[in-house]
Amino acid sequence: MNTSDASASPADLLFDAAEEVRIRQDLALVALGKRPADRALRIGRLLDVHTRTWHEDQEIVIRGRRIAWIGPAGGYEGEVRERIHEPALAAVPGFGEVHKHIESSHLTPEYEAALVLPHGNTWTCEASHEFSNVNGPNNLEFWLEARRRGSPLKIFPLPGSAVPPTAYEWGGGYFGYDEQKTFMEQSLMVAGLDEVMDWPAVWNPESPSHGRLWGMIQATFEKRGVVEGHAAGLRDLASINAFAAAGLASDHEAWTPDEVRDKLARGLFVEIRPYSMPDIVRALLEDGLADWSQIAFTTDDRSSSDTLKLGATDYNVRTAIESGLPPEIAIQCVTINPARHMRLTPWVGSLAPGRYADIVLLDDIANLSIAKVWADGAPISERKTYTGALPKIDWPDWATKTVRIDRELTARDFSIPAEPGRETMQAALLRPFHWDDDFITAELPVQDGLVQRDAGRNITKFAIVDRFSGEAKTSKMFWLGCGPRDPGVALGCTMGHDKHNIWVVGSSDSAMATVVNAIAAMQGGWVLVRDEQVVAQVRYEVGGLMTARAPEELEPEMQHLYAEGEKIDWMYEPTFSPRWWPGFPERLAFATLTCAPWRWVLVAPSPMAPAGFVNVQTGETHPIVW
Amino acid sequence: MNTSDASASPADLLFDAAEEVRIRQDLALVALGKRPADRALRIGRLLDVHTRTWHEDQEIVIRGRRIAWIGPAGGYEGEVRERIHEPALAAVPGFGEVHKHIESSHLTPEYEAALVLPHGNTWTCEASHEFSNVNGPNNLEFWLEARRRGSPLKIFPLPGSAVPPTAYEWGGGYFGYDEQKTFMEQSLMVAGLDEVMDWPAVWNPESPSHGRLWGMIQATFEKRGVVEGHAAGLRDLASINAFAAAGLASDHEAWTPDEVRDKLARGLFVEIRPYSMPDIVRALLEDGLADWSQIAFTTDDRSSSDTLKLGATDYNVRTAIESGLPPEIAIQCVTINPARHMRLTPWVGSLAPGRYADIVLLDDIANLSIAKVWADGAPISERKTYTGALPKIDWPDWATKTVRIDRELTARDFSIPAEPGRETMQAALLRPFHWDDDFITAELPVQDGLVQRDAGRNITKFAIVDRFSGEAKTSKMFWLGCGPRDPGVALGCTMGHDKHNIWVVGSSDSAMATVVNAIAAMQGGWVLVRDEQVVAQVRYEVGGLMTARAPEELEPEMQHLYAEGEKIDWMYEPTFSPRWWPGFPERLAFATLTCAPWRWVLVAPSPMAPAGFVNVQTGETHPIVW
Repeated sequence: MNTSDASASPADLLFDAAEEVRIRQDLALVALGKRPADRALRIGRLLDVHTRTWHEDQEIVIRGRRIAWIGPAGGYEGEVRERIHEPALAAVPGFGEVHKHIESSHLTPEYEAALVLPHGNTWTCEASHEFSNVNGPNNLEFWLEARRRGSPLKIFPLPGSAVPPTAYEWGGGYFGYDEQKTFMEQSLMVAGLDEVMDWPAVWNPESPSHGRLWGMIQATFEKRGVVEGHAAGLRDLASINAFAAAGLASDHEAWTPDEVRDKLARGLFVEIRPYSMPDIVRALLEDGLADWSQIAFTTDDRSSSDTLKLGATDYNVRTAIESGLPPEIAIQCVTINPARHMRLTPWVGSLAPGRYADIVLLDDIANLSIAKVWADGAPISERKTYTGALPKIDWPDWATKTVRIDRELTARDFSIPAEPGRETMQAALLRPFHWDDDFITAELPVQDGLVQRDAGRNITKFAIVDRFSGEAKTSKMFWLGCGPRDPGVALGCTMGHDKHNIWVVGSSDSAMATVVNAIAAMQGGWVLVRDEQVVAQVRYEVGGLMTARAPEELEPEMQHLYAEGEKIDWMYEPTFSPRWWPGFPERLAFATLTCAPWRWVLVAPSPMAPAGFVNVQTGETHPIVW
Repeated sequence: MNTSDASASPADLLFDAAEEVRIRQDLALVALGKRPADRALRIGRLLDVHTRTWHEDQEIVIRGRRIAWIGPAGGYEGEVRERIHEPALAAVPGFGEVHKHIESSHLTPEYEAALVLPHGNTWTCEASHEFSNVNGPNNLEFWLEARRRGSPLKIFPLPGSAVPPTAYEWGGGYFGYDEQKTFMEQSLMVAGLDEVMDWPAVWNPESPSHGRLWGMIQATFEKRGVVEGHAAGLRDLASINAFAAAGLASDHEAWTPDEVRDKLARGLFVEIRPYSMPDIVRALLEDGLADWSQIAFTTDDRSSSDTLKLGATDYNVRTAIESGLPPEIAIQCVTINPARHMRLTPWVGSLAPGRYADIVLLDDIANLSIAKVWADGAPISERKTYTGALPKIDWPDWATKTVRIDRELTARDFSIPAEPGRETMQAALLRPFHWDDDFITAELPVQDGLVQRDAGRNITKFAIVDRFSGEAKTSKMFWLGCGPRDPGVALGCTMGHDKHNIWVVGSSDSAMATVVNAIAAMQGGWVLVRDEQVVAQVRYEVGGLMTARAPEELEPEMQHLYAEGEKIDWMYEPTFSPRWWPGFPERLAFATLTCAPWRWVLVAPSPMAPAGFVNVQTGETHPIVW
């Protein structure tokens, strides 16, 4: 791998309007043959995604990082410095992710780029919800830095709409009208506002987040950006209509064909994830759907472990093809369709003059077999091997010192005192992915003045530790159907959607304290404690979410965590399928989401929810035991 | 007709981001049934243009001017103040013009609205090239005024890119970076930059308009607007590629199927006009084109006389259907496709929540027979009869006093002196729509020291009189194949693309002076002089381009002009077919265009072309006689 910074035309890495003018003035002269081109790639066939048409024996003429000319081989009249011929390969545009949380790969952007580019993914609309919540002020700088240093992946950051996720959370930053306006003014690469997910705050004028959120929407409208939506669980026509009426332009949370039909008909741009793709694609094909222009495929969240196993955007396209969709339409769903929706067609989404020369070269179209990928006008991979620029970034303290805990935690931080003289107490219980209007209750034993877990009834303890204030404010309660049944075990992580405080689940209060102290010491990641000892840890030193390492280096740590996790007996109770399954409870990282359709959630102690137990749709709070 | 101002929710007429927020907050509550809706329209079927799907027995629930809810009849759970049922009619979205010069209708926007709305045209991207050139500073105010007063037609003004059209012209205004930036900041309804037509100024850094034009492009990029193109005559692959590489996003000037194919493949959004539509549509259908998403249909220029005869946007759709295109695709080409291209989908282009409730009700889909039209949530026409708001506007002086000529012109202004002692002189000749690199030459007789016309060889005189400085600076030369053969005749008009100075063609210098003086007296329009007397005039008192009158009032004046014109023997020679035909030379109004592919043009005297005869591609000037 080439780890040096890119040399040529740095101004074209993070374009602005003035640079864009200079680049395009130059490209026009190259297209006319009045200035020399850098490179020409001749291929066996080329997919014109504007019309879904294959053209045979074409040439792509490149200047700097962009396409200057495209047409039949031999037709370009200017001088070309270097010519490459791939007669057996078919060229399609670089694939785009219309909604992806790079944070979920747990790699910093430069390593994400090296991982996904060989899979054809050359541009990503970064749903920056996570890092926005960890370090709001430096969010844009963070997402643009790798590109600034020459990484070929075009990251279009969308500032998180939920910073903080709800009015019951705090720390890491605050995004409202002023912040969003500034982001949209700072870079043309900011395409809009990341998924608006706090639906109660949108429709309900009484919601404490209503004003902040609409301020961000207003700033996005003002700057002609796109307001992305997140309509999870909104399946009734009233809600879908209201969601579209509010100006939220898309949804990526549809699970059923009917939901997709209903959302498309209300003008929502539908972004389908691979989980639900086979059902949806087959059903739409049975409908005879002829116009797929309002549909994209996207990843949303995928760990680098899974990307190593499954693939990146190519996996999504392949899943659609395997579900019966013609490859050409499937490719449109990751190229022109999302580029048009995000108003990024001047730069990405098709092989056409003015766009980045990001080209996926296939040796088998029907199987989407990727032989090579070009990005920024040059080859950057051969099969799965990345050969492009991978800038070495020493991430500054604002990125690597984000877990602020100024004290040692002890078992006492996680104990739940009973009322004096009580032998049992009533307790509020949550399950992972429990979306009911009401929480669950159980009567739990008291011992030494403290309310106790009950492994026999699948009840353990779950806590959230604030990592922003330094004080490690801790909220805790009993949870059902998750966590270790074995004694002396705890598991925790700084990736804890949406606020990314530390979550920890455990059969022992002291083990829970050990987990949090170990996480704080390494500035983020996973820690597993067994027999009161740390047995596995995974370092996410950047934002507590990512690591600045290659996935091949991260992977053994994750595999060790999984292997140690296998040795533990984990409780399980089904809730929302297929979001929650038995075994190592990795998905607890998503069990503290606060967006729709969530109701009762545990957050860090906050002024509006001092015990942290709050219904985020209504603002109602409740004691955790009584 | 209702000529009073609209009463309800004036804030929704010219939306801005803050109002948009208030409107959408309200709409979401209506969709949820928490606030009452104003009106519900139930129809037999409804076309979902997002997916090209018909839905049967649907209801459109309306709040104010917008759609709040859409779905199966009976499905809306809220209260509705008024219900209307049209079981026999099919609802499709209001039609949009992606590129139209309302100036060419010769009606001010309030009368244009009343004319085109019954034809289903509910929104128009106004190509404001003409009025921009007459009064640049008041351009935006002019185009938004009718809507501000309640007219249901949504006009999205695009500031002219060619103000002045070339560096050889002046007066009326100047648009560069600062002006375009201000326009885009002033109103969200400004969708971008109107057709970039001065192609030499785009690609050629030596062009004197290069900096001004790229300044406007830069400001449009900065504000995330769309840069519209005009690629007339650009048919070679080098030019088409260069045009797309320059960032110009569309073309509406393609004449042949091959040109359309080549432009689509380079990522240009292709806007097809009815002149060339049958050939193009048939050829693309023969190609088997399955994806029409990058294609729109549009009018560009059409007089109100022609609209009365042919129709408006509906005529374009009908022409496509008659050429074999399925009605549903044809309707997409005037709804969702152009709305998506112009980034206006939040407001127009489909029947979906949040959009304006602009609905075309068809009683015969295959023939596009329009029974009724709704706009802004209420019925505004029954068959061809307009019943909506038609605000009475007393246009201010900046609109009605635009012909500034502070002196009487005489025959001497149009005479062309010979060199002393010469019996003949060589003369430069132009023909209408003469796009050759070279002008034509002829040897002409001299009489009384003046070079003479030669009707026997189809040679007459053509002049341009400046109407901006007050001095009536005049340039003149001999033209071939146009103008009157009869003596004592002259014809002129203030509509003279692109600068809209006064053009006048005549067999007599004094008749030419009479024409100009009469035009100045009525502040613009057409004047025909026969036997040295004014025999017909048509008043365009607004900008010298339009009249604030109903087309039914304008039409008799035009018909009288045509009738008087019939009495005259007009010279003719073919040039570019079908742009130029025999008979009354109405199209001389377009014979002084300066955009591509024009070369030699006559403009008003200017510092860079004192005699007004200049090659606008090279800047070369030449004497008119020698």
